[in-house]
Amino acid sequence: MTETDFQKVKVNQSRLMQSLHETCQWGTGERWGPAPTETGMARLALSDTDKQARDWFVETTQKLGCKTMVDVMGNIFAVRPGKNKDAPPTYAGSHLDTQPTGGRYDGILGVHAGVEMLRVIQELDIQTEYPVGVVNWTNEEGARFPKSMVSSGVWAEDIPLEDAHNLVEVGGSTATMKSELQRIGYLGTVPASYRSMPMAAHFELHIEQGPILEANCQKIGIVTGVQAYKWFTIDVKGRDAHTGTTPFSSRADALLLAARMIVHAQHVAASMDALASTGILQTFPGSTNTVHGHVRFSLDIRSPLDETVEALEATLRKDFDALAAGGPSLFAHAAPHGGVPLSVSWQTDTVSPATRFHPDCIEAVRQSASSVLNDSAGTLSRTITSGAGHDSVYAARHCPTSMIFVPCRDGVSHNPTEYCAPEDCSIGAEVLCQSVLRYDRLRAGGV
Amino acid sequence: MTETDFQKVKVNQSRLMQSLHETCQWGTGERWGPAPTETGMARLALSDTDKQARDWFVETTQKLGCKTMVDVMGNIFAVRPGKNKDAPPTYAGSHLDTQPTGGRYDGILGVHAGVEMLRVIQELDIQTEYPVGVVNWTNEEGARFPKSMVSSGVWAEDIPLEDAHNLVEVGGSTATMKSELQRIGYLGTVPASYRSMPMAAHFELHIEQGPILEANCQKIGIVTGVQAYKWFTIDVKGRDAHTGTTPFSSRADALLLAARMIVHAQHVAASMDALASTGILQTFPGSTNTVHGHVRFSLDIRSPLDETVEALEATLRKDFDALAAGGPSLFAHAAPHGGVPLSVSWQTDTVSPATRFHPDCIEAVRQSASSVLNDSAGTLSRTITSGAGHDSVYAARHCPTSMIFVPCRDGVSHNPTEYCAPEDCSIGAEVLCQSVLRYDRLRAGGV
Repeated sequence: MTETDFQKVKVNQSRLMQSLHETCQWGTGERWGPAPTETGMARLALSDTDKQARDWFVETTQKLGCKTMVDVMGNIFAVRPGKNKDAPPTYAGSHLDTQPTGGRYDGILGVHAGVEMLRVIQELDIQTEYPVGVVNWTNEEGARFPKSMVSSGVWAEDIPLEDAHNLVEVGGSTATMKSELQRIGYLGTVPASYRSMPMAAHFELHIEQGPILEANCQKIGIVTGVQAYKWFTIDVKGRDAHTGTTPFSSRADALLLAARMIVHAQHVAASMDALASTGILQTFPGSTNTVHGHVRFSLDIRSPLDETVEALEATLRKDFDALAAGGPSLFAHAAPHGGVPLSVSWQTDTVSPATRFHPDCIEAVRQSASSVLNDSAGTLSRTITSGAGHDSVYAARHCPTSMIFVPCRDGVSHNPTEYCAPEDCSIGAEVLCQSVLRYDRLRAGGV
Repeated sequence: MTETDFQKVKVNQSRLMQSLHETCQWGTGERWGPAPTETGMARLALSDTDKQARDWFVETTQKLGCKTMVDVMGNIFAVRPGKNKDAPPTYAGSHLDTQPTGGRYDGILGVHAGVEMLRVIQELDIQTEYPVGVVNWTNEEGARFPKSMVSSGVWAEDIPLEDAHNLVEVGGSTATMKSELQRIGYLGTVPASYRSMPMAAHFELHIEQGPILEANCQKIGIVTGVQAYKWFTIDVKGRDAHTGTTPFSSRADALLLAARMIVHAQHVAASMDALASTGILQTFPGSTNTVHGHVRFSLDIRSPLDETVEALEATLRKDFDALAAGGPSLFAHAAPHGGVPLSVSWQTDTVSPATRFHPDCIEAVRQSASSVLNDSAGTLSRTITSGAGHDSVYAARHCPTSMIFVPCRDGVSHNPTEYCAPEDCSIGAEVLCQSVLRYDRLRAGGV
């Protein structure tokens, strides 16, 4: 294909949006506006509504000339043949499952853009050099079965199949991923592995889930990688005490110490251009007139650089110990934490090293963005590091990968009001389509 | 009675402790040590075990020559006649109910010391000038029916009877105070009021529930009053956001702001010689990779002076607004809370003004402590302000009142391991006994 040919690759915005919204009849969530499409989504992985969305995906891609394959994690691979029939396909991929209070774009847009790509290819009767495909990954959100990106993780052979199959639904049920895969008819026979189901490349269109594109009036994020992160559970143990009778000097107030740690963690992270966040905080015993003896909180630290995450962790371990010992205070104003030392312990829950995407894929996205946006100066797009994890992280371990970000309103996601304007969805889908076709040309020896 | 007579007023330590521990068979709580008495207590107000303890109290005091009267709040007044039969009695009082994870001393010691006082008076065949009595107040803890000191509050006519009767048991039951009073047979007929059941004075022996006596190797706290306190519920509202994709500058992190407020509140309180504490903190939504959009926490501020409580509240209202606005930071290090303002709202839950006990009662306690401890220099006792509320707060509104504190191990209470050494229980009971007798003499015109 020539640059002129790429210019002809236009997605059909209304067809794309209609397809996306029609399938959101399965798992419709909370309403936030009066229009029919102004609801969130609650399509938990392997639920009845996820099965309906999967059935649609299989039927639609088969009608578009694809062969569909389902692996033992329920990942669905829809492949359209190329001139060279035996080589691995170039994939567009994302996920159809959502958070319980999710929106209509996170994951869903990426799969629908892949399907739109297949329609455009069929419509223009493009013969690709190699097969192209669309993959729907299972339980990316980790909301129902508590491990994010678990099925691409099994495909990458980073997560053992048995661990994944045995994941139990959150909330007291006994359903497992395996039992639910069986129940809805998506326990495939193909091994979930990059060896059995190789990918030549993986491109993923996704909403940014952050405010940067919108704030800069840019349309496309050319994603160069995913930042490193580590998750910890931190236990602070002091002593329950009566709020009325216990002077500050006699307290071992676990909540006060946790508060100082949370403030300090964000201070240190900011100074390193990293992120630190606490999303879960539990307190014991929890009575108005009792000083807390025990607080447990999550700490999520992130940076594009692994070494920054390591340095931040090391600093915080040292500083948290100093704060807990109640020795010379790091903060003059926090003097009330006087004489009674507390204990602090760390548990490492998740380690996710930084991912660097492949230069060839990044370049394909850059060229496509420039072409679609008619923006040779590159002012309407930017390179960006993904703050969140995606299936592309595991894909990147075994094939060239990149992602395409589009802006979402106020940077909001994992929320019913999550929103990406139709024209932005369409621009993103067109960049995805071109990127896959450009990579196909590259594989064939083109530039 | 002369000073020599008072010297003869000795309590029987083993009788006192045996009586206390025997009645702890009703509502025995969590075990913390191997000895039979090394358990906590879980004797919730108006439970079956509370009924057993009440039955024991009525039977025992009647055997000691008392007339017992039960009011419509289940408060039990045991009165031993004096020479002057018609005047109101001088009371020792406290409560037999406990926290669900309480100990053997909070409240219980005060009632048993009162009973021991009756035994000593009978044993020595003391004829008091006026009647003396022991009162057991209902549901002082507010643990089962959620209002502390509710029945002395009704007696003081500060809490309407209907409100108290309609208090519903915590935890989803439909039982009310009234229905439970009826069920266990303690819905008396006497109106609960200082008018129907007047008290000439009220003395209460109680464990300190704080570390001050123990830390100073002192045996008796001569309680001059109870500090003022106010309880608030504070809501901090920001915006949920993804921890990985949202830069600090775009966050409205309700937990970070709450953490800064908690640290700041304690800093300001310390500078005013007051207390500030957060015993309840709830976070929403609560997911490792989501910045909190909403945090609700309790704020408990206390000082012996009403005006200090007011000044502290005013300062914190102003400073919390400044912190929420994200304007010029009060704390240089908290700079990461950048541009996005949050909202903060206050709800006032409880206002308890400072209580000042009566000079006559305080003096009776001081003289008794000096006598019992053979400590004319007063080094083994100290005047002290109670940090916690007690039934004596309501008693003090309608009769001269004071309290006697004894040390408890590590200042711990509301905990199964709560402990007061037998010799300290005994010293306290002896000071209580002398204080009531000294006050009786004072009423008769003695010094």
